[in-house]
Amino acid sequence: MRRVRYSVAMSLDGYIAGPQGEYDWIPVDPDIDFGALFEDFDTVLMGRKSYEAARRQGGGGMPGMEAYVFSRTLRQHDCPDATVSSDPKTTVPALKAATGKDIWLFGGGELFRSLLDLGLVDTVEVAIVPVLLGSGLAMLPNRRDRAELRLARHRVYEKTGMTLLEYAVV
Amino acid sequence: MRRVRYSVAMSLDGYIAGPQGEYDWIPVDPDIDFGALFEDFDTVLMGRKSYEAARRQGGGGMPGMEAYVFSRTLRQHDCPDATVSSDPKTTVPALKAATGKDIWLFGGGELFRSLLDLGLVDTVEVAIVPVLLGSGLAMLPNRRDRAELRLARHRVYEKTGMTLLEYAVV
Repeated sequence: MRRVRYSVAMSLDGYIAGPQGEYDWIPVDPDIDFGALFEDFDTVLMGRKSYEAARRQGGGGMPGMEAYVFSRTLRQHDCPDATVSSDPKTTVPALKAATGKDIWLFGGGELFRSLLDLGLVDTVEVAIVPVLLGSGLAMLPNRRDRAELRLARHRVYEKTGMTLLEYAVV
Repeated sequence: MRRVRYSVAMSLDGYIAGPQGEYDWIPVDPDIDFGALFEDFDTVLMGRKSYEAARRQGGGGMPGMEAYVFSRTLRQHDCPDATVSSDPKTTVPALKAATGKDIWLFGGGELFRSLLDLGLVDTVEVAIVPVLLGSGLAMLPNRRDRAELRLARHRVYEKTGMTLLEYAVV
């Protein structure tokens, strides 16, 4: 079964982007092999806000990946480079059951919360950046229930002080 | 110079306590040597809410440590087991300049924010517990500015999956 993996960079105080969606606090670490990381995936899941933010920066979908955008308001003709779904409860299990590589849950936090509530997230993989942002977009915005994790792997990137922690959702 | 060290357990999503102040999500790890940790300190700094929460649970001050509570409303006669200060800007530099062991910034997040704003915090030492609380008391409640950190040390506790990350405030 393909796994859904929430793989994000996070400040130590729990934000995945600054208050205006800023990413400038995430250092480029020469020891992170993004090529190898992206090789694990052929599909990416994005919430509407994350998709629109990527579009504004000239992106949208991810090169070489099939992109899905979850939104109640976007229509398919708004998104030439992605498949639009308003129903993660149907779309994500169908993707997991299909053949393919792992599925990257790009974000944001609200999509993570929705998929966590549905029991559809397999791993949480967080690169903790040595900064306190103070405010921004939360890795997991306000949610009622707890979720237990199990630490599966860790790695410290010495040059930037980033720490990668990989957890399985229990 | 004695260091002020913010040493806390934190959920992966950035909370140091549950919404009602709960600590039941913090596992007891047999490999953490609390005796050795407490040996580093002879002074503990607490915000009013943390102090009152500790009092409700039968504590207040910490055994063998001189306790300081920061509050604009508490009076000294309210706190038989601690020194009350309404002025961290004066009290904390005086403590740092005095002779003694390191100073434990117990919390909560609002006192951390105040002391960080004043440039009085030397290290941030976070034991990341493998759980997503979803809501609770933030390790650093909403703050305007960023603070850069430098990773100084890390340790993984295999039995519980807790990860200790120690940072210097830059």
